[in-house]
Amino acid sequence: MTFQMTIPELETYMAEIFPQVAQDFRIEAIKGDETVMRLLTSDRHLRPGGTVSGPSMFALADCVMYAAILARLGKVALAVTTNCSIDFMRKPVANTDLIGTARVLKMGRSLVVGDVLLCSEGDSRPVARASLTYSIPPAGNPQ
Amino acid sequence: MTFQMTIPELETYMAEIFPQVAQDFRIEAIKGDETVMRLLTSDRHLRPGGTVSGPSMFALADCVMYAAILARLGKVALAVTTNCSIDFMRKPVANTDLIGTARVLKMGRSLVVGDVLLCSEGDSRPVARASLTYSIPPAGNPQ
Amino acid sequence: MTFQMTIPELETYMAEIFPQVAQDFRIEAIKGDETVMRLLTSDRHLRPGGTVSGPSMFALADCVMYAAILARLGKVALAVTTNCSIDFMRKPVANTDLIGTARVLKMGRSLVVGDVLLCSEGDSRPVARASLTYSIPPAGNPQ
Amino acid sequence: MTFQMTIPELETYMAEIFPQVAQDFRIEAIKGDETVMRLLTSDRHLRPGGTVSGPSMFALADCVMYAAILARLGKVALAVTTNCSIDFMRKPVANTDLIGTARVLKMGRSLVVGDVLLCSEGDSRPVARASLTYSIPPAGNPQ
Repeated sequence: MTFQMTIPELETYMAEIFPQVAQDFRIEAIKGDETVMRLLTSDRHLRPGGTVSGPSMFALADCVMYAAILARLGKVALAVTTNCSIDFMRKPVANTDLIGTARVLKMGRSLVVGDVLLCSEGDSRPVARASLTYSIPPAGNPQ
Repeated sequence: MTFQMTIPELETYMAEIFPQVAQDFRIEAIKGDETVMRLLTSDRHLRPGGTVSGPSMFALADCVMYAAILARLGKVALAVTTNCSIDFMRKPVANTDLIGTARVLKMGRSLVVGDVLLCSEGDSRPVARASLTYSIPPAGNPQ
Repeated sequence: MTFQMTIPELETYMAEIFPQVAQDFRIEAIKGDETVMRLLTSDRHLRPGGTVSGPSMFALADCVMYAAILARLGKVALAVTTNCSIDFMRKPVANTDLIGTARVLKMGRSLVVGDVLLCSEGDSRPVARASLTYSIPPAGNPQ
Repeated sequence: MTFQMTIPELETYMAEIFPQVAQDFRIEAIKGDETVMRLLTSDRHLRPGGTVSGPSMFALADCVMYAAILARLGKVALAVTTNCSIDFMRKPVANTDLIGTARVLKMGRSLVVGDVLLCSEGDSRPVARASLTYSIPPAGNPQ
């Protein structure tokens, strides 16, 4: 599948639509089936002990999959998250960025399905795994 | 099942262990099978348009179920979230508190399972529904 | 919400579209938000020890929610299951029917979301809990 | 990780513990992180139109992950499925075997987490994706 937006275009657009959080995330790569995003871990993402909180892991999973969809569909579509199932498997490494790798499994006309693996930078064992579904509003029917 | 902690005890304890977020949440009720918690919605929970973000809904679901477990088991247990499956069904009402109602379905020795319904205050149609699983470390084996 | 089909109409229709399994299930009630279905447990649903298998619990959850949707939308819609998240909490009672109670949480134009509680007959502690999402094809666009 | 059981040992053991369904499945490969199983599709797995039913897809996902766990832990452990979240993405190809590929993401002392991709034989686009969690009873504490 061809891409409709480059990484700089995606980062600019996501900064417009998610001004509160866009500076927390950085797109590392978009290639083939995979989109890779980094959570620039800072104090507000942490729990006591220095590990990344559950809601911050959820946010990274949602954000990297959203970028993967935008890259493929362009700005025209306003995808809405309808489901996320996330398994927390290990404690993230303290005070370390998280890397989320998204894989699009189905790019349908009305539903997009994909999954995301989250790892602490420098450690290949996943800390969490999420599957997400997005609803795409009908074309020409802006919401 | 009897409760091990009162609402003020829970709020004090949760402020100790989650200092970054505890002031966002207020326990409204613990009665029978249900635990009710309010997200005191403020700017940092919102997306453009004034609706509560997905990660903030996730945080409320996780937090109210965690309170429900603490109320039943007391401080001895350090429950760890292992899975959350969340369905986002409607846009939350703009600039309005979210109310999460948790129901414990299984209180096992090693696993606790429950679900949570999230509604915008004053509107009975659920904005999201989550099911959550927690792992309870073996007694006498603090982590 | 009004109902488009009665229990006998539903059972006749489901026997047409699911001839292999319809005789395993019986609709017990459709009232208000709840639809109740019974799995008439027989040998082919069981695992060693006489408890109902996971796939049979999944089938009951899917089938009762499907009936709940049909009752509301009528035959016109061919809903397709897009997601099911199921928690298995307790072993079902051996050689006993399972009762599934479905609750519709969102009846949207393109997506329906609901959840199901499964109990062994005569025991109020749930053996499993499922949440399910269905996609409804656009009206006038039969598949 | 080393394997405790060969494919023939696994098939013999699974035929003992799941006599009703073991003949439906055949283990194709166990290598590295992946375990591959085939559903030998027959009439009882089908829906009208000849496509594999949802419960049969669920059964394949559960069965291939169970085999992956047995291969790693041996017969000593009686893993119990505690959660399955499954996304149905495309209609399976009619009258065609389904191939399930399982990946173990966490092999903990008390919980195992993994995911499974299901494809119709000869078609690389996934028809479904499942994530599953299993509880491992404490060693020396047979159930």
